[in-house]
Amino acid sequence: MPMNKDSLNNLKQRLAEFAADRDWDQFHSPKNLSMALIAEAAELVEHFQWLTQEESRGLSDEKLKEVGEELGDVLIYLVRISDRLGIDLIEAANRKVDLNSEKYPASVVKGDAKKYTEY
Amino acid sequence: MPMNKDSLNNLKQRLAEFAADRDWDQFHSPKNLSMALIAEAAELVEHFQWLTQEESRGLSDEKLKEVGEELGDVLIYLVRISDRLGIDLIEAANRKVDLNSEKYPASVVKGDAKKYTEY
Amino acid sequence: MPMNKDSLNNLKQRLAEFAADRDWDQFHSPKNLSMALIAEAAELVEHFQWLTQEESRGLSDEKLKEVGEELGDVLIYLVRISDRLGIDLIEAANRKVDLNSEKYPASVVKGDAKKYTEY
Amino acid sequence: MPMNKDSLNNLKQRLAEFAADRDWDQFHSPKNLSMALIAEAAELVEHFQWLTQEESRGLSDEKLKEVGEELGDVLIYLVRISDRLGIDLIEAANRKVDLNSEKYPASVVKGDAKKYTEY
Repeated sequence: MPMNKDSLNNLKQRLAEFAADRDWDQFHSPKNLSMALIAEAAELVEHFQWLTQEESRGLSDEKLKEVGEELGDVLIYLVRISDRLGIDLIEAANRKVDLNSEKYPASVVKGDAKKYTEY
Repeated sequence: MPMNKDSLNNLKQRLAEFAADRDWDQFHSPKNLSMALIAEAAELVEHFQWLTQEESRGLSDEKLKEVGEELGDVLIYLVRISDRLGIDLIEAANRKVDLNSEKYPASVVKGDAKKYTEY
Repeated sequence: MPMNKDSLNNLKQRLAEFAADRDWDQFHSPKNLSMALIAEAAELVEHFQWLTQEESRGLSDEKLKEVGEELGDVLIYLVRISDRLGIDLIEAANRKVDLNSEKYPASVVKGDAKKYTEY
Repeated sequence: MPMNKDSLNNLKQRLAEFAADRDWDQFHSPKNLSMALIAEAAELVEHFQWLTQEESRGLSDEKLKEVGEELGDVLIYLVRISDRLGIDLIEAANRKVDLNSEKYPASVVKGDAKKYTEY
């Protein structure tokens, strides 16, 4: 079956089929998926924990490949949990960007970047 | 400026502009973004920590809205860190699904779901 | 050198010497240690992510040993970061228990356990 | 009742009584406690996510107080989960230090600190 692998929707579909084919939906409660998601996020953190910020900006190709795999894993669980909860992920993120745009107007916070941590 | 808000690419674009407009790229090292990502993932976990799995499957509309916001936040940082690292997120996730399909063939693991935790 | 291994203070001492002997204090900024701490916490979460609560209460001896190692790792980074920040960990925890005792008086919340998640 | 608040054992005792008085043991499965632990660890991470390592070493008194509260919270859940699993936390941590001492002999890794991330 040919499949367009480009979109988030197709990824959602693939993951739903993957779980159904293996009878794994029983394990995929939102509670459990939130745990799997944070465990993958932590594997990402692990790659960066002893690096300086500068070093984290200049990863080797090998490291980049490994980090890419962790990012893929996080997206997998993020899409899966959203699907199980019936939440539109892209819409949710765009709504947050809308909110943040109001909360932190560029005209106010720009050039005041040193206070970023206090917003 | 009209903007199609549907795709992951547009979200990436919006977030890049959002950060540039505020001079915040300086804070957005991959190291820092991995920390922000896991902090958002933890807010998701917090919603589920005292619930049973069953309860996590039947959230109220109000809870669903809150959880949706956390999911949006996780996606925001996930897209942002991928962008900063030049990683194609959808491609990375699909590559992981390909790998997992080989690693856990449905014909082998199906019906053996109780051993899921040992795969 | 004989050493009483029983107390948190001795652990703090051992970890300080361990890092000094290896010239590792340079990596042990509070920022980095907070990342290492959460990465270890996530390894703990991973052990439980596909288990039911009931199963998590009845771990096999082998699992218990593995989980014990993760708990040890979390304590190591927790003690280390507290030491680097000059914070008395036991005092900090007891202060939080004091606060929580006022916040959640037994006479009020007892028997109302189902609402635990809303406190 | 007078209580020596200095030791980890006393903290364990206090927390057990706190939960019993409120009928909260039912929520304190190891699975749930691992989630609460990582959620607290993430609040710690949040304090440091936009700081440089240097800044994280020089927190203001006010920040230090807040960070101390998060550290206390992490210890509370760490002690609680260890108690529920019957694991001696100090012993577990000391065993890990023993293992790490063998794994990373000072004579080998010292002065080679730049490779720390690869150990």
